[in-house]
Amino acid sequence: MGENQLAIIAGGGSLSDVIIETARKKGWNVTVFAIGDLNIAKNQDISLIEMKRLDIGRIFQILKSQKIKNICMVGYIPRPNSPKDYLNFRYLNVQTLSILFQSIGILRGGDASLFKKINSLLEKRGYKIIGASEIAPNLTLKGGLYSSKSVSKVEFENIKKAKQCAEMTGYLDIGQAVVVKNGRVLAIEAAEGTDVMLERAACLEAIRIKRGGVILKSAQINQDKRVDMPTIGPNTIKNVVKANLSGIAITADNVIVLDFQKVIEMIEDNNLYFIVI
Amino acid sequence: MGENQLAIIAGGGSLSDVIIETARKKGWNVTVFAIGDLNIAKNQDISLIEMKRLDIGRIFQILKSQKIKNICMVGYIPRPNSPKDYLNFRYLNVQTLSILFQSIGILRGGDASLFKKINSLLEKRGYKIIGASEIAPNLTLKGGLYSSKSVSKVEFENIKKAKQCAEMTGYLDIGQAVVVKNGRVLAIEAAEGTDVMLERAACLEAIRIKRGGVILKSAQINQDKRVDMPTIGPNTIKNVVKANLSGIAITADNVIVLDFQKVIEMIEDNNLYFIVI
Repeated sequence: MGENQLAIIAGGGSLSDVIIETARKKGWNVTVFAIGDLNIAKNQDISLIEMKRLDIGRIFQILKSQKIKNICMVGYIPRPNSPKDYLNFRYLNVQTLSILFQSIGILRGGDASLFKKINSLLEKRGYKIIGASEIAPNLTLKGGLYSSKSVSKVEFENIKKAKQCAEMTGYLDIGQAVVVKNGRVLAIEAAEGTDVMLERAACLEAIRIKRGGVILKSAQINQDKRVDMPTIGPNTIKNVVKANLSGIAITADNVIVLDFQKVIEMIEDNNLYFIVI
Repeated sequence: MGENQLAIIAGGGSLSDVIIETARKKGWNVTVFAIGDLNIAKNQDISLIEMKRLDIGRIFQILKSQKIKNICMVGYIPRPNSPKDYLNFRYLNVQTLSILFQSIGILRGGDASLFKKINSLLEKRGYKIIGASEIAPNLTLKGGLYSSKSVSKVEFENIKKAKQCAEMTGYLDIGQAVVVKNGRVLAIEAAEGTDVMLERAACLEAIRIKRGGVILKSAQINQDKRVDMPTIGPNTIKNVVKANLSGIAITADNVIVLDFQKVIEMIEDNNLYFIVI
């Protein structure tokens, strides 16, 4: 009990499975709260608690009764959009009500701001937040060129502009990704997510004419890197190809790369560049 | 000949008709270059030259032969995406080739940057650029509240955040509009345009739950206000309603409002706020 107990609050996306498996192998005694319709691989070594939606009251009840103090949040969990959402919880108790009360302030702001506030709330209650990248540090990459294809001068300029743009929008807690081609910002991610942004970019006339341009994904400057880490994976690469871009850039040590081998294979098959800056 | 001759290079959108009509009434001798499939109202008082796409060579030829020095560009003209686009021109002559040569640099950067460079090129050749808002200055608005519905404290905060965001993205020549709700930036416009951005916002879960939030549209800080003015109109308001926003904010003196009466009517019918800041 206690020290090696870990609660993984798992949302959508394939990162959850990787983190659960890695944590288990590293000797954690894992309890998984699977939020939404997930297909978490059942395993006799983990306790799996499935819930249709994020039910904070019920989670706290279980954490308390099982004396779990370590929490890792991973994957996409739909954010509560209004305090009213909490009223739909099955286990509405004093703790939930207290969170509800504090949440009215929490809900203002972007995702980074939301997660920071939730974490500080949890820490005040004696919980310890453990980042997915602490459990599996090999999921992020050191700086360098990871593709056979090199980065042309034009693309270096695109990456520079994308970085400048991402720094500004990150500062305002807006989004994690931006598409730049021929020195022109074609798309910026806000609440819609990277995939939707890439699909939109793919529809632009400026995209169709000739292959070129970059998507840059990076953590925001004010982001709590223990949660809500930017993630890329095979699906991202598929969308990068559809959007007719020349390559992908991510920032070092703070973007999770899912299924690295498959990503590199797709990068090579499609003659893309892949740089970590 | 000369002084009162005005060439209007007209692209898509309903602004073209308004500007042509206003210019004519003000005594300009108007030659319209209608680019693309436009329905410019035929009028015996104007010369109408229709072309499938922006053919700079042909335009220059006509401007020169008719000694027209004043140029007004209005409406959306698809930007050339590569120097190759110029090679499709019907009238490829020395002038076009010279522009082609200079354009290789011109094509890098956002729309504001593109228009600034084109204008400086034209001015060097002795042409005078006249802004749509100079011809019809009543198309922009002074600061103030233009709706019966007032702006709540929450919405003032949204507008403040939107303005901060628009200033940053405008500085990088990215786009003209942004959607903010509950202090969170939900969508930023880049190359896709305001309508597509609003359609995207309308699909977000954070939009559907409860009416609220604002779209702010403004000119960019480095924008040449004689061309490429941000514009709103009845169609914008229709999309604002679909996106479940509470209101619309524009900046004073630099956003064109098309069909003002209809816009105000729709604002009132849908209980939106409309503020010019």
